[in-house]
Amino acid sequence: MPYLPALLILLLTVTACVSPRSTTTEGAIPLARQGTFAVGGTVKRSPGTFDPVAHGAFNPGNQSTAGQTLHGDHAAVFYQLPARARELPLVFWHGYGQSMRTWQSTPDGREGFQTIFLRHRFPVYLLDQPRRGLAGRSTEPTTIAANTDDQLWFGIFRLGVGTEFYPDVQFSRDPAALDQFYRQITPDTGPLNIDLNVAAVSALFDTLGAGVLVTHSHSGGQGWLAALENDNIRGIAAYEPGSNFVFAEDEVPEPIEYVGGTLRARGVPRATFERLTRIPIVIYYGDYIPDAPVDNPGQEQWRAAVAMARQWTEVVNAHGGDVTLVQLPDRGLRGNTHFPMSDLNNQAVAQLLLDWLAEKGLD
Amino acid sequence: MPYLPALLILLLTVTACVSPRSTTTEGAIPLARQGTFAVGGTVKRSPGTFDPVAHGAFNPGNQSTAGQTLHGDHAAVFYQLPARARELPLVFWHGYGQSMRTWQSTPDGREGFQTIFLRHRFPVYLLDQPRRGLAGRSTEPTTIAANTDDQLWFGIFRLGVGTEFYPDVQFSRDPAALDQFYRQITPDTGPLNIDLNVAAVSALFDTLGAGVLVTHSHSGGQGWLAALENDNIRGIAAYEPGSNFVFAEDEVPEPIEYVGGTLRARGVPRATFERLTRIPIVIYYGDYIPDAPVDNPGQEQWRAAVAMARQWTEVVNAHGGDVTLVQLPDRGLRGNTHFPMSDLNNQAVAQLLLDWLAEKGLD
Repeated sequence: MPYLPALLILLLTVTACVSPRSTTTEGAIPLARQGTFAVGGTVKRSPGTFDPVAHGAFNPGNQSTAGQTLHGDHAAVFYQLPARARELPLVFWHGYGQSMRTWQSTPDGREGFQTIFLRHRFPVYLLDQPRRGLAGRSTEPTTIAANTDDQLWFGIFRLGVGTEFYPDVQFSRDPAALDQFYRQITPDTGPLNIDLNVAAVSALFDTLGAGVLVTHSHSGGQGWLAALENDNIRGIAAYEPGSNFVFAEDEVPEPIEYVGGTLRARGVPRATFERLTRIPIVIYYGDYIPDAPVDNPGQEQWRAAVAMARQWTEVVNAHGGDVTLVQLPDRGLRGNTHFPMSDLNNQAVAQLLLDWLAEKGLD
Repeated sequence: MPYLPALLILLLTVTACVSPRSTTTEGAIPLARQGTFAVGGTVKRSPGTFDPVAHGAFNPGNQSTAGQTLHGDHAAVFYQLPARARELPLVFWHGYGQSMRTWQSTPDGREGFQTIFLRHRFPVYLLDQPRRGLAGRSTEPTTIAANTDDQLWFGIFRLGVGTEFYPDVQFSRDPAALDQFYRQITPDTGPLNIDLNVAAVSALFDTLGAGVLVTHSHSGGQGWLAALENDNIRGIAAYEPGSNFVFAEDEVPEPIEYVGGTLRARGVPRATFERLTRIPIVIYYGDYIPDAPVDNPGQEQWRAAVAMARQWTEVVNAHGGDVTLVQLPDRGLRGNTHFPMSDLNNQAVAQLLLDWLAEKGLD
């Protein structure tokens, strides 16, 4: 080495440096930091004094609780910070019966939003809401029934009807993909409590500072509530929000009836509602959502949700807000299920969000 | 730019390339791929025919199960592959009441084994065993009691006695660290079933091929059982294994009595047992484990575990095995709890494992 001409050394070094495609680091993401933490939550305390000698042995089902605590009801967060990170982090919040896995690999094994947005240099924060997944510790007991219900979710998640996929649906026909999709489901480990969930997400934004919240389905409505609590939420992207649309209490619209239920809006004081007019919001819905009533409940609740979202968009914007409602087929993206973030065209779905973030100065 | 002399461009490029410490990519890990998947598991089926129109609406507590399935009992895996990865992946398996969070950030927010070993270019696979954390879906029902028991675990996890830390324990005195530690606990979401757990981990090694298993506490004994099932497990590092030490059935030692319980060994046919003599195994225990009986159950079960591990090491090695039993204080590492991988000195603990992996040709 010491005898090589200096220029040759330079050339060799440069070759190694500027030709990443010829090395095994092709496409590697420079990951500066990653980790996990719990945020929010409560502490339950039992009266009395804990005696470590008398009660310090593991004795399942027959353990003295005297003087003991239980730390629960927190959210669990996994975060990744890329090198040369953009300023505003994206916080990804799953929907009903789901966990942070919604945003990780797709059921057919491709990259999900976690990795796609990390590659685009966003700090990414994935959360499990209180009493779900890695945040399983609840201060209140529950029973998990383990009832069979995959086909119910096949319908509600709009993969198809019964066991038949919709024609041209953006979901792999490899049976292993559907098997993986079902195995993303994970139960509540305590009673579902929206107030606890919103408090934990608000606590996360207290920790993070300014950021953008990305919600899915059941977290959509909870996301509006979190934004009412915390000004650090500087924008929201909501995939298929289903319930809890928030209106000023003197403008709450009529409930919407659909096959299987009734969708009611939520009223809050006008001054509170107006906070939702101060941040940019985008809402995305996928395909197979009819405009008029049908007999299939798996489509009906989304017909109601879109109808409510249309009214909400109009009202928030009439009060000076900045809500964009996108039905993906209108943008040329067809075949999307209730999970556009992990559908076969999820790169195109992600590009729409990237464009919106850029347009709103949130990137 | 086009007017800069070629050599100057080279020099600038080289500077950017060889001075990572002066850029924002300082310490960045080149991450080639990451993702999640489920592995193992069963499918529960209810008789009948699912009617998507009659039963396709969400109706909690009153849902027809006819003709439906439930995919459950799988493990959930999160993996990361660094650029220029080493050949053998490390598979990290949590202990009782824990999840993959055991291996992620430490309770005081430093890097855990996931990131430490990723920086050392190991492919890392973290798992949640069936019916735990992100693998929450169980085919059998359960009730989660939500009883207060933090102080019990404070003792069993050997942070101290009652609410008092051991002197010089390798655990942060920042109350936020203890709060985070307690919030790592997450409940079983179905009946604990060692056979299911072992089957899922064996299925993971079928998928991965050769690799090294890293266990903690309750997964220690399950790890021996997994190695009996799957030859792709080429080595095991066990942190504080507590039970299920496997002997040939004609060599099962006497049970060990301790304050709070009895530790029994497990017998298997000799030919099965002998598989454990064919792979290198290292076992680590931390501090505060007495040699003679004491009155504190939080220490007693580990006294029994170490005594059993000593006998096991002797027997496996007498049959040609390669087991190394390390009590960390003997290597100059003092103050370790039941969680050496996340204690304040976890970098030194990791270095011992790196050295062992190198010595056994597993790196």
